[in-house]
Amino acid sequence: MNTNLNIALIGAGRIGRVHAEHLAGRIPEAHLSMVADVDREAAEACARKFGAPVAVADYRAVLDKAEVDAVVICSATDTHAEIIEAAAAAGKHIFCEKPIDFDLGRIDQALAAVARAGVLMQVGFNRRFDANFRRVREAVRQGEVGTPHRLHIISRDPAPPPLAYINASGGIFLDMTIHDFDMARFLIGSEVEAIYTAAAVRVDPAIGEAGDLDTAVVVLHFENGVIGTIENSRQAVYGYDQRVEVFGSGGSIRIDNNHPNTAVVSTAQHVRRDLPLNFFMDRYLDSYVDEMQAFVTAVLEGTPPPVTGNDGRVPVVMGLAARRSHDEKRLVRLAEITDA
Amino acid sequence: MNTNLNIALIGAGRIGRVHAEHLAGRIPEAHLSMVADVDREAAEACARKFGAPVAVADYRAVLDKAEVDAVVICSATDTHAEIIEAAAAAGKHIFCEKPIDFDLGRIDQALAAVARAGVLMQVGFNRRFDANFRRVREAVRQGEVGTPHRLHIISRDPAPPPLAYINASGGIFLDMTIHDFDMARFLIGSEVEAIYTAAAVRVDPAIGEAGDLDTAVVVLHFENGVIGTIENSRQAVYGYDQRVEVFGSGGSIRIDNNHPNTAVVSTAQHVRRDLPLNFFMDRYLDSYVDEMQAFVTAVLEGTPPPVTGNDGRVPVVMGLAARRSHDEKRLVRLAEITDA
Amino acid sequence: MNTNLNIALIGAGRIGRVHAEHLAGRIPEAHLSMVADVDREAAEACARKFGAPVAVADYRAVLDKAEVDAVVICSATDTHAEIIEAAAAAGKHIFCEKPIDFDLGRIDQALAAVARAGVLMQVGFNRRFDANFRRVREAVRQGEVGTPHRLHIISRDPAPPPLAYINASGGIFLDMTIHDFDMARFLIGSEVEAIYTAAAVRVDPAIGEAGDLDTAVVVLHFENGVIGTIENSRQAVYGYDQRVEVFGSGGSIRIDNNHPNTAVVSTAQHVRRDLPLNFFMDRYLDSYVDEMQAFVTAVLEGTPPPVTGNDGRVPVVMGLAARRSHDEKRLVRLAEITDA
Amino acid sequence: MNTNLNIALIGAGRIGRVHAEHLAGRIPEAHLSMVADVDREAAEACARKFGAPVAVADYRAVLDKAEVDAVVICSATDTHAEIIEAAAAAGKHIFCEKPIDFDLGRIDQALAAVARAGVLMQVGFNRRFDANFRRVREAVRQGEVGTPHRLHIISRDPAPPPLAYINASGGIFLDMTIHDFDMARFLIGSEVEAIYTAAAVRVDPAIGEAGDLDTAVVVLHFENGVIGTIENSRQAVYGYDQRVEVFGSGGSIRIDNNHPNTAVVSTAQHVRRDLPLNFFMDRYLDSYVDEMQAFVTAVLEGTPPPVTGNDGRVPVVMGLAARRSHDEKRLVRLAEITDA
Repeated sequence: MNTNLNIALIGAGRIGRVHAEHLAGRIPEAHLSMVADVDREAAEACARKFGAPVAVADYRAVLDKAEVDAVVICSATDTHAEIIEAAAAAGKHIFCEKPIDFDLGRIDQALAAVARAGVLMQVGFNRRFDANFRRVREAVRQGEVGTPHRLHIISRDPAPPPLAYINASGGIFLDMTIHDFDMARFLIGSEVEAIYTAAAVRVDPAIGEAGDLDTAVVVLHFENGVIGTIENSRQAVYGYDQRVEVFGSGGSIRIDNNHPNTAVVSTAQHVRRDLPLNFFMDRYLDSYVDEMQAFVTAVLEGTPPPVTGNDGRVPVVMGLAARRSHDEKRLVRLAEITDA
Repeated sequence: MNTNLNIALIGAGRIGRVHAEHLAGRIPEAHLSMVADVDREAAEACARKFGAPVAVADYRAVLDKAEVDAVVICSATDTHAEIIEAAAAAGKHIFCEKPIDFDLGRIDQALAAVARAGVLMQVGFNRRFDANFRRVREAVRQGEVGTPHRLHIISRDPAPPPLAYINASGGIFLDMTIHDFDMARFLIGSEVEAIYTAAAVRVDPAIGEAGDLDTAVVVLHFENGVIGTIENSRQAVYGYDQRVEVFGSGGSIRIDNNHPNTAVVSTAQHVRRDLPLNFFMDRYLDSYVDEMQAFVTAVLEGTPPPVTGNDGRVPVVMGLAARRSHDEKRLVRLAEITDA
Repeated sequence: MNTNLNIALIGAGRIGRVHAEHLAGRIPEAHLSMVADVDREAAEACARKFGAPVAVADYRAVLDKAEVDAVVICSATDTHAEIIEAAAAAGKHIFCEKPIDFDLGRIDQALAAVARAGVLMQVGFNRRFDANFRRVREAVRQGEVGTPHRLHIISRDPAPPPLAYINASGGIFLDMTIHDFDMARFLIGSEVEAIYTAAAVRVDPAIGEAGDLDTAVVVLHFENGVIGTIENSRQAVYGYDQRVEVFGSGGSIRIDNNHPNTAVVSTAQHVRRDLPLNFFMDRYLDSYVDEMQAFVTAVLEGTPPPVTGNDGRVPVVMGLAARRSHDEKRLVRLAEITDA
Repeated sequence: MNTNLNIALIGAGRIGRVHAEHLAGRIPEAHLSMVADVDREAAEACARKFGAPVAVADYRAVLDKAEVDAVVICSATDTHAEIIEAAAAAGKHIFCEKPIDFDLGRIDQALAAVARAGVLMQVGFNRRFDANFRRVREAVRQGEVGTPHRLHIISRDPAPPPLAYINASGGIFLDMTIHDFDMARFLIGSEVEAIYTAAAVRVDPAIGEAGDLDTAVVVLHFENGVIGTIENSRQAVYGYDQRVEVFGSGGSIRIDNNHPNTAVVSTAQHVRRDLPLNFFMDRYLDSYVDEMQAFVTAVLEGTPPPVTGNDGRVPVVMGLAARRSHDEKRLVRLAEITDA
């Protein structure tokens, strides 16, 4: 296989192994040359499975290797900023899973380090590469529905994560809505000025006791006049619910969920379909391949990455504003967050 | 035909003639006995077309007739309250088109008159009788989607009305959203405590110059914890867009638009359907028959009307709150309106 | 109401009462002036309910009245031909339910009588007036799918009729498929040359013991080269299944079933819709109004009826050919039937 | 990667390269160890691209290698039988693209060679592994639609192949319908007794001049009483049209086409979707991975292949019967072909 780019994986957890599989078998220009994980056995198992020659526990061993061109950071969120800075200092190109960090100041330091080093950095908002969302983006860009007036995003998980996860998640807005904030900016191509949030604990009281929310509507006032709404739930019993509508002067475009097949069964009871895909990895599998392919292509061709460091920063600002709006029951301008 | 109820129509405009046709041909227990309209020629034309024996200019001539059991009020909005009071005083049962009035005090006077007279009064929120909306209501009532968490209503007109109409309309929230406010209460079966509005002029600047809005998102905080959203536009170029979704602990129910046929055409360009029904009278025709049938049945059987005077009052409160929220860019509690 | 045409109903059974209701309340130019039924009580009940002044037992009493302009024949099939001939001799315009008769010679006599009298005659193939089928016809006529190559008709009843009905029905091809034979000719606008049938008893052995079939595929070789297929079943447990696809050089058009609402319910089990409309009268209600309106308009304006006597005759030929093909396990040319 | 099975590819054309890519990157237990093609450059290019160590021109060089466990035969159809026999003699397990051959006698010799050698052989009917068709098969197997009465298969190509291809194709029934014959047997789980064909040249007269047909309806009389129909066209301008319906005593299951996304665009003209996937490789990509995975698993585990040699033979019999039925305008029993 034609391998032009040596890539090291840092973090061999669930999402790390997904990227490893794609780098090993589905992206011809990439070579998975190292795997690092604080759990050395996990690193070794991953390296063995996907044919990487070297496995290490300490990510710094990766950055020391001259032959490593780029790193894919899939470690715990609270290590992202530190590894980004170290990788940038070592001259490695960077793919980093979202979020960069929960702390704006820490994000800004990391982005400054990347800028100083002149390396390329892409943030892992994979949904931008999904065929459905890409189609909506194209429609907006080409004016297929005229001037956009409204954006509505439905984003519901099949089931809430474990409480331990929720406690470390940064809260629903930084963990779940963050994807939708990115999608809103991506689809509309404009920035948000102010946010109003209506949210509640409806799915599981334990989530509320942990200080988090599980049901939310977020109203986005865009600079270009579009009114956006995002709705989230931690639990849609019928599966992963990921829909979008953009409405404009020329019409509307909406996307529906992906089902495992197109079968319609009609019986004496009802006309029905099988449930939508339930697991985010099934639903978004192809988008993970495509985002990694885009990263590899951008590095090899020296073109800008399709998802920048700033694209990783702004949704964090939006998440902080959304939470403040809920806490204070009022419209919050994003400038209140960034000027603080 | 078996006619038990003598009904007089007051106001022979567009909606009045629709009711006249149904009373004459599709509701066996009703007899259209008189038509009144300030434009006597309109009254006569309508009476002739639908077989009513008498036509008059002054609605008071209707109320004088002992044989008239009930009136259907379809005159201009600013005459509703006065006619309701007079009809109640004359002991006639009342069907009145929405809105009762734009002024809360005036509405309260009219409702008090009805209560004093002990007559039955039904308000013309016809959409409650539509097969789609009724199906959603049943699903919520029977727990088919569990405990509701979210309600989303999409309500878009095919094209804005003439400016002259808009100037007399009371504004988008009292003219258009009022239907959705009623629908929200009907579907969820709970009252709204507070409202946040994000609205704009996106369709036609002339609407803005008239002091009105044409694009709106209204967030509803229900007493029972449901978070509702209504979105309106004065112009959906593809036709009348009337969709709803209720999401809850047990799943979701959503209704789509009605099309004139079920045909799907696949060509070298695309796979397509004909546009949704464009005219509200086509879209909601059956609901007009069913609401009038329900009125006639309620009067004949002495049962409570399915849409009460209070159901006519609350959406006006909501409309006033929605406008204030937009004007003041803040969450507005309904109590601020009713306690004023 | 503006009544230009006095119409007498002959036969006050189920379908007769449907026509009576439409003539009385929904077709402004028609006046239901008499009802005849061999069961005089049925005639009187129908007349009373729909406001017809006169009820009689003998249809000849109807034909004697000079003021009757037209008759609507809904009596038992074996009386159709006789009543047509008598009505034609009396100079009455004729609407006759399908089939005219099961015997080709008898049909030809009746049609000859109509031709001699110069009256207008329309046969009751109501589905031609249904919005879905009309849309397909328009697509074919206007070349929206290019030159047609294929026609596929799915036509399944919700449940088999009682055995007593089946015994008098003329068999599945003359009772059920006859509608689809008419539809095939209507949609393609060409005649069928030869027919191949594959049929069986799959739903109920008692139907087979009665000498009939309950499951059938009929292949139609059209003169214009189109290959048609019709599939019938006496029992689709999910409801009335009435679909069509026309495929051609420019694409395809297909129509799906009509449901009572557009609701989609998603639960932990599946994504489902309510069953299609189950009863032919619900499914085709509007088409009955429209066919009768078309008849009234044709008589009043002196224009040709949209469904002629010959349109009533040809499907009987096709039904006889379909049965012979099944019996002899071979392709049967229609000329074999008509030349016999 | 964990490679237990050494596989050699014979034939590096379009479909061969697809299998090579999957063997190299997506099937962990397989190792692509050799590529053979009469065009040595093609063999070398394919080997280089997918990391196979050896490339040869003569497939016999492959069979000589002891370390090769299995062969994947993707060469020209007229070489299949010969290579099967040689591979069997060499003790290699065999995956062979369809059809095995156009000549029944030749097929029987090849299958006998496989039986004698005791090697495993799987035929390349990939559609059985498609998620949609698999879902229908499961529904039938589990009685989800009761006892099947009807099967309807729609199978239309986006555009006819070049005439050169058609001339060598064996005709539409052996080239195109053969997939549907296999699908019919797979879905219903019963054999076909007799076939009636209605076919024509409607797409391109040149196809007719070449002695072939481009539009066909094939009626299948199954042993278990099911009536099947297959319809084919060489050209559906809207894309690859692959639908199926099974109807039975308990209801129906139908599958629709696969689209590149779920977007619905509503404009002032219509409500539309993007065209279905157009290229068979896009439409059936996953099924090619899954069929090869199934082959590898069957060989490694010593279980029967999911598509046997007999499954490769019977559709050829059906194709010959279908053509004879068209030529002789009559029902043809399969025994007429096999007993000849």
